[in-house]
Amino acid sequence: MRTVIGVMGSGRPLSQAEEARAFTLGRLIAESGWVLLTGGRDEGVMDAASRGARQAGGLVLGILPDDSPGSASEHLDVAVYTGMGDARNVVNVLSSRIVIALPGGAGTLSEVAHALNAGRPVIACGWDPGDVLRRAGGLLLHVTETPEDAVAKASLLLAEDAS
Amino acid sequence: MRTVIGVMGSGRPLSQAEEARAFTLGRLIAESGWVLLTGGRDEGVMDAASRGARQAGGLVLGILPDDSPGSASEHLDVAVYTGMGDARNVVNVLSSRIVIALPGGAGTLSEVAHALNAGRPVIACGWDPGDVLRRAGGLLLHVTETPEDAVAKASLLLAEDAS
Amino acid sequence: MRTVIGVMGSGRPLSQAEEARAFTLGRLIAESGWVLLTGGRDEGVMDAASRGARQAGGLVLGILPDDSPGSASEHLDVAVYTGMGDARNVVNVLSSRIVIALPGGAGTLSEVAHALNAGRPVIACGWDPGDVLRRAGGLLLHVTETPEDAVAKASLLLAEDAS
Amino acid sequence: MRTVIGVMGSGRPLSQAEEARAFTLGRLIAESGWVLLTGGRDEGVMDAASRGARQAGGLVLGILPDDSPGSASEHLDVAVYTGMGDARNVVNVLSSRIVIALPGGAGTLSEVAHALNAGRPVIACGWDPGDVLRRAGGLLLHVTETPEDAVAKASLLLAEDAS
Repeated sequence: MRTVIGVMGSGRPLSQAEEARAFTLGRLIAESGWVLLTGGRDEGVMDAASRGARQAGGLVLGILPDDSPGSASEHLDVAVYTGMGDARNVVNVLSSRIVIALPGGAGTLSEVAHALNAGRPVIACGWDPGDVLRRAGGLLLHVTETPEDAVAKASLLLAEDAS
Repeated sequence: MRTVIGVMGSGRPLSQAEEARAFTLGRLIAESGWVLLTGGRDEGVMDAASRGARQAGGLVLGILPDDSPGSASEHLDVAVYTGMGDARNVVNVLSSRIVIALPGGAGTLSEVAHALNAGRPVIACGWDPGDVLRRAGGLLLHVTETPEDAVAKASLLLAEDAS
Repeated sequence: MRTVIGVMGSGRPLSQAEEARAFTLGRLIAESGWVLLTGGRDEGVMDAASRGARQAGGLVLGILPDDSPGSASEHLDVAVYTGMGDARNVVNVLSSRIVIALPGGAGTLSEVAHALNAGRPVIACGWDPGDVLRRAGGLLLHVTETPEDAVAKASLLLAEDAS
Repeated sequence: MRTVIGVMGSGRPLSQAEEARAFTLGRLIAESGWVLLTGGRDEGVMDAASRGARQAGGLVLGILPDDSPGSASEHLDVAVYTGMGDARNVVNVLSSRIVIALPGGAGTLSEVAHALNAGRPVIACGWDPGDVLRRAGGLLLHVTETPEDAVAKASLLLAEDAS
C-alpha cells in the first residue's frame, strides 16, 4: 500500500509566499513517492499543495467536506466526498501516516489535535504550535521551518517506523 | 427548544479537585435550567459533570463515540450512539449553544477548535488556552477560573444572544 | 437511562392520513414513557411524530443532518446537530433501541438497512418491506399495520429483552 | 479528475463463483481506466474486486470503517481510514460516480439506499433488488446479470452523462 502524507493548513486566500510554500511542500511530497492527501477544496493550502504535487507527477487525494464536486480543486486525481462537513477532518488525519501542518485557523488546529489524539505524528511547518498543543502532543509533535525541513523530518520518521 | 450547554474535558481519571470542579459545573448547568451535553462515557469529566447535573435534577445528554451502551456513564438520561469515534466530537460542539472546556488533552483541544471553527462560543474554565487558540478563536473564546465564573459567563452570553 | 424509540419515514409532505398516523405513533411512544427520536426536521414524518409526542408530554430528541437550527422541527425538546448529512441516519438507528419505520423513500430504507446491520429491531408499520429486506433482516424485522400494533410489538420486544 | 466506480457487496466469505464474479468486476473496471473504490477490508467482495483491479494494473481506493490498517485488504493502493463504522458507507457512495452492487446483506442494502438517496446511479449485478428498492430508485436503479453487463451499462451511463 502506498504511503499517504497529509498536508493541512489555511483554506483562506494565501499570500504569494504562503502559496509558494504550500506548492513546494506538495511538490516535495510527490518527488518523495508519497501520495498527497489534502482537504480537497479549490482554495488555500489544499489547492496550492495539490497543484505542486500534480505538477511533479504525484498522486493527489482530496477528502472533501462536501457531497459533490462543486468546490473540489482541479488538481486532484481522486476525490473522496464525505458530505460530513468538519467531521471529514478526522478522516483526513486518520488516513495520513504523517500530518504536515502549515499555518491555519481553527479548522487546521482541529486536525492537529485529532492527529495527536489518534497517534499520528504532526510536523508543524513555519509556525509555533505553542505550549498547549506541545503538552497534548508530546513526542508526536515536531516543529520545522521550511517545506524542505518538514519533508526531511517526515522521511526520518518513516525510516524509524520501518526499522 | 431547550438550551444545550456542552461540557468537554479530560477522559482520564481525575484528581479529587478536578472531580469536584466537573461535578459542580454539571450541577450549576442543571440548576440554570439548561440541558447538559457531554461525551457520554463513564470516565473523567464526562462522568463527573453528568453526575452533578443528574443529582440536581437536570437532563443529561451523552453523545458517545461508541455504537452501544458498553462504556456509557450511568448518569445519562439519554444516550446518543454515533459509532463514529472521534468524529462525534464535531457533533458534541455543533449541538452545544456554548461549549465549556475544562482542562483536557488532544481530544478536548479538537473540540475547542471545532467549536471555534463552527462559531460556537467556548468558555475555557481553569486553564489558559494560549496564544494559538486565542488567535484562532478571537471573540468566541473566553477564559474563566471557576465553574461559577463559567456559568455566569454562559448566562451573559445567552442573554446577549437573546437581546 | 431512558428507553429511546426511533421513528423513521418520509420527509416529504404527507397526506392527511399519513400525518395522522405519524402523529399517533409519536403520541403512543410518549404515552409509553419512551423518548421519541426522529431525524429532527420540520417536515414529513419527523415533524408529525414529534408533534404527537410533545402534545402527550413526552421527550423528543431530533438528530439533524444540518449543523444549525434552520430546518429543525419546532416540536423538539433537544436537537442534536451533526452537520453530517445522511451519515446522521446511522446515528439515528444506533441511538434507538427499536426503530419503527413508516413508509418512506431511499433515506428511510437506508435507516432500515443500517438498523438491521447493527442488530437493532425494525418494526415496519403500514408497508411491506419485501423479500430483499426480509432476507437481510431475518428475525430483526417485524411487520405491523397500525401505530397501535407497532407500539404493542415494541413493548413486547422490550419486555422480552428485559427478561 | 479520475472517474471512480464503487463496488459494493457481501463482506462474508464468498463461494468460488462469487469470488470469480467480484474479481472479474474489479478487473473490468481497471481495464476501463476507472479507479475502483471498495469498502477496503480484506474480506468478501471488497477483497476480491480489489485483487482483480490490481492484477489488471488499476488504481484501487479502499474506504474503511476502521481507524487503522489492521483489517485492510492487501490489494489497495490507497486506504482511507474513517474510524466511523457504518457511516463510511455514505462516503463510499458519495465518492462513486456509479455504484455497482453485487449480492450482499444489510450493509450492502444501506449503500444502495444511500446511493439512490444521493442521486448516484446503482447497477445491481446478479440479483433482483425487488419492488421496494425499485420504487425508491426509479430511473437511477439498473439491473444486470454479469460483470460484463454491469461494466457495459456503466460505460453507457458515463457516456450519456458526458454528452
